[in-house]
Amino acid sequence: MFAGAQVSLYPMTTGFVDVIMSSLTALDPWRDRLRIETDDISTLIVGPPEILFPALRDLYVAASKTGDHCVLRTTLSRGCPGEPDDPICQTSALANPAEPIASRQATALAQLGLADDTGQIARAQFSLYVMGAPNHMDEIMGCIAFLKESGTFDRSKNFCTRLIGDAGPVFATLQHAFCQFGPPNGHVTIDLTVSANSPSTR
Amino acid sequence: MFAGAQVSLYPMTTGFVDVIMSSLTALDPWRDRLRIETDDISTLIVGPPEILFPALRDLYVAASKTGDHCVLRTTLSRGCPGEPDDPICQTSALANPAEPIASRQATALAQLGLADDTGQIARAQFSLYVMGAPNHMDEIMGCIAFLKESGTFDRSKNFCTRLIGDAGPVFATLQHAFCQFGPPNGHVTIDLTVSANSPSTR
Repeated sequence: MFAGAQVSLYPMTTGFVDVIMSSLTALDPWRDRLRIETDDISTLIVGPPEILFPALRDLYVAASKTGDHCVLRTTLSRGCPGEPDDPICQTSALANPAEPIASRQATALAQLGLADDTGQIARAQFSLYVMGAPNHMDEIMGCIAFLKESGTFDRSKNFCTRLIGDAGPVFATLQHAFCQFGPPNGHVTIDLTVSANSPSTR
Repeated sequence: MFAGAQVSLYPMTTGFVDVIMSSLTALDPWRDRLRIETDDISTLIVGPPEILFPALRDLYVAASKTGDHCVLRTTLSRGCPGEPDDPICQTSALANPAEPIASRQATALAQLGLADDTGQIARAQFSLYVMGAPNHMDEIMGCIAFLKESGTFDRSKNFCTRLIGDAGPVFATLQHAFCQFGPPNGHVTIDLTVSANSPSTR
């Protein structure tokens, strides 16, 4: 299995380089479980979902704490048939393929209760894509039903769903959406935007 | 059919509101063919691909001309089974489902020759997702083969492909990737990032 994310941080301030560089230190505690490569558009972070999502949460929280309007944008992927297996991605976080959707929804909801608050609000918008499966809309609708019970559901929009809440439960909700829906050996992606300190919400 | 995009513009400057507001005027010539709704995270633009991509190009070019480091981020979708048909999305730009991949690649390459330059460089990174089809990787690999011949191919990365060139041919390449690959009555999405004036490339 290969899993990871292309991640970008967009601080809407002339001091954007400083915000990016200082926020990246939040990844340090996770670096031994991840492979990280940066270019001018995004940073590739390769690793298992149970490490990837907490690392993204910590990066977001660090940027959010600056008080600047910042957006974390990421393309998450697992199981792409075009990517090689990588031992660093080994995970036990994916659902049992034999488990029906209702049971996976219950598992995801139970695990959400373990998420600690961070003190930073996250406004997230994302789309879950399930490929190579004829029943992809069943999985997507099953995920949306889970989101509606998650405690951070904000609203559905065209092409995506909005979440709002403390960054702890918001990133935990995203993690369980990614892990519990779509076949564990399938190709699943998330297109995610998380916004901090937007002046439009003040 | 329903098609459109959730679009965000991220100017990495303290004057980000002014850059966004002035760039949005670039959409004015297209507004009678589009439906546009804005919230604090993104702007929904509903309409057919042959209007949507030139409108996004003009928005990007206006932001790029400010000289600030700006990123245009968009989630594009067509044919999502969860969305209602909308007359504004009516299009003749999608491929014939009976046409083999090689012929669609040739059509896309021929149409690229019609794209005018804009004078602004675009560094783009995107993923094409084809859902509800067992052969989704054939379509994605067929699209990547087209990209390699497009004249704007930069390189493949994990989870995505990079393009570089004048914004005219770059957005035309994205439009034909979206229209010619994946079944015309299927559910196809693009996760797109286009970066202008990054200090990392100077």
